[in-house]
Amino acid sequence: MLRHFLNGPTIYTHIMKKQMKGTTAIVPCPVILLSVKGKERPNIITLSWVANVCSEPPSVAIGIRPNRFSHGLVKDAGEFVLNVPGKNLFDAMKFCGSKSGRDYDKFSEMKLTAVQASKVDAPMIDECPINIECKTSHVINVGVHDLFVAEVLAVHIDEAVLDEKGRFDTSKVDLFVYIPLNGQYWSVDSNIS
Amino acid sequence: MLRHFLNGPTIYTHIMKKQMKGTTAIVPCPVILLSVKGKERPNIITLSWVANVCSEPPSVAIGIRPNRFSHGLVKDAGEFVLNVPGKNLFDAMKFCGSKSGRDYDKFSEMKLTAVQASKVDAPMIDECPINIECKTSHVINVGVHDLFVAEVLAVHIDEAVLDEKGRFDTSKVDLFVYIPLNGQYWSVDSNIS
Repeated sequence: MLRHFLNGPTIYTHIMKKQMKGTTAIVPCPVILLSVKGKERPNIITLSWVANVCSEPPSVAIGIRPNRFSHGLVKDAGEFVLNVPGKNLFDAMKFCGSKSGRDYDKFSEMKLTAVQASKVDAPMIDECPINIECKTSHVINVGVHDLFVAEVLAVHIDEAVLDEKGRFDTSKVDLFVYIPLNGQYWSVDSNIS
Repeated sequence: MLRHFLNGPTIYTHIMKKQMKGTTAIVPCPVILLSVKGKERPNIITLSWVANVCSEPPSVAIGIRPNRFSHGLVKDAGEFVLNVPGKNLFDAMKFCGSKSGRDYDKFSEMKLTAVQASKVDAPMIDECPINIECKTSHVINVGVHDLFVAEVLAVHIDEAVLDEKGRFDTSKVDLFVYIPLNGQYWSVDSNIS
């Protein structure tokens, strides 16, 4: 395959690549359950278009399609909770990502416990080991998704996943990730540092 | 621990949580090498504040501190490449995340190959199995980080990590993630779906 080096001659390399049109190719992606106060009942959606984006004030960004039921709930409420699930909540994650809160009470269907957050008016999913309380600061239309930027006001971590110094112990949660390039979920298994 | 349920009586649950102030608690996070054209030479920075945020047009968001050398390069260039490293580039990832492009030619120091991208004027890191060509669409100040939203114009995937149908084969790349809550890196090892 012909390769054009920036500051050198055109040479052949051993790495052959397939070029394709633009797509959401960042891998791996976190898998997050967003919980929000609803008009009639709290709701949950599964998100993978989500990241920490700023350290101070601690802030996150999430992409939500306007045609999803939760988009209106998140926009109207202006606050929500991001919940990090362990692998034991894999089925609930799939359910909350494929069913609409218009049709289902997802907390009840998935036997999840809604606990009132402390800084925002939103439910936290008690069964998730990490709950992140967020207040929207910016909404930016990017295309078929709106980007919500939100400040993190408080974090709750299950004491069972902390080490003796009170630090998060990765080995005590079965974290997993999403691979949008092929639709797979993979588990995070070994410490390499 | 006393818990107040949204629509029920106050009861005790078995899950005890530690509440802390707001922090960047989304886990796990991707680890990405951003490459950008520089004034004198191309540069690379390691990012974890990064996500796919929109499907159409395919778009990403990244957070970069204005005091980092690459911030000015990314802002001035308006285009860059996000490169997904395998575990074999772990040392390069650490180097590019801790040293400044002011002081080092990171491509040269890490023996990485800069290949000209096809749609944007930026170098791709040939040794990374996935290269994502991006053009900035929005820059939003969030706090100590600026949030860059960018459209994905093209993606290159190493043929060695595709299956016989040309689909991304997760098992052929040693992907890894960052855990900002404790500073650890973990590997993505097993398909669970």
